[in-house]
Amino acid sequence: MVNYPNGKKTYNKPLISSGNRGMDLEESINITNEYYRNNNIAIIYKKPTPIKLVKMDYEKAKIVEAYFQQPSTTDYNGVYKGYYIDFEAKETNNATSFPLANIHAHQIEHLKSVLEHKGIAFIIVSFRKKEEVYVLPAQIVIQFYEAGARKSIPYQTFVEQGFKIKEGYALRLDYLKIIDENFIKNFNK
Amino acid sequence: MVNYPNGKKTYNKPLISSGNRGMDLEESINITNEYYRNNNIAIIYKKPTPIKLVKMDYEKAKIVEAYFQQPSTTDYNGVYKGYYIDFEAKETNNATSFPLANIHAHQIEHLKSVLEHKGIAFIIVSFRKKEEVYVLPAQIVIQFYEAGARKSIPYQTFVEQGFKIKEGYALRLDYLKIIDENFIKNFNK
Repeated sequence: MVNYPNGKKTYNKPLISSGNRGMDLEESINITNEYYRNNNIAIIYKKPTPIKLVKMDYEKAKIVEAYFQQPSTTDYNGVYKGYYIDFEAKETNNATSFPLANIHAHQIEHLKSVLEHKGIAFIIVSFRKKEEVYVLPAQIVIQFYEAGARKSIPYQTFVEQGFKIKEGYALRLDYLKIIDENFIKNFNK
Repeated sequence: MVNYPNGKKTYNKPLISSGNRGMDLEESINITNEYYRNNNIAIIYKKPTPIKLVKMDYEKAKIVEAYFQQPSTTDYNGVYKGYYIDFEAKETNNATSFPLANIHAHQIEHLKSVLEHKGIAFIIVSFRKKEEVYVLPAQIVIQFYEAGARKSIPYQTFVEQGFKIKEGYALRLDYLKIIDENFIKNFNK
């Protein structure tokens, strides 16, 4: 299971639709994070995908053999209003549920640790066919993962316990608005 | 100016001495962060070095041409007691000062932004010849950088305004002890 630089598998290309303006989730989040940085709202970055370096051409400072590795943490982290922010973003073509196989065991462990250390942790899931993107608190993801009985989180759980992100133009996916209104408000430091 | 995976230039190999047990700074910090994670103290990771991918062999999922890129942020970040932690770590063979050329302009900007967003930001500098490692608050680094007159931070500034890290065995470089006692205590959230 090898990830390519955009964090997706080759056999899992994003659908292009007029509704989401041909942008995939990662691109939308990157643009949003750039907006947050440029407007002095938050400092959140996508971490580079780790590689396993096998061979270098040192003369040319060129990597000639390497492989993408599975990250041991989530893809995004940073700081917002003094809070540590940490999340994973995933797309699914499934219309009725989000398959938990999209999130690896070590990422679940990481999200749990972030919560223990009083960070704000969540996942962002794009239901492509519905053209809807949700924030779901890590607590809920962990509950489903640990319940073990089912291998996916129903779409309905996102509707009821998650928060739909309003899409915009310059501010593509203003997920921090949700964090502000639903996470920080009730946050005990 | 190309960085190799360990974040150092090839012409800048760490000195091996009995005093620091042959470990370079990055290795020591990685071991320390592992200790912090395993003992449920903090979640702090080194970010992978970003690469510019030029060519892939998709059949074999192999990177066949790529180059290391200069990171736009610092090397380490994470969460400790709910605080966002962000720092850069550097070694120097210079005994009397730390050359500011070691920290890039965009890294200074990043440290400033972290402070603005109420994160805890600092640098860790290892003076190899003295076998001493210091934490220096980002505020001081920024001051020196912006004063512009001098191209380095005197060793004496580290002694007077920084905090020497006590070296240990399992807990190689307990820098969070310093953060606890000198940063968080007076931190206004």
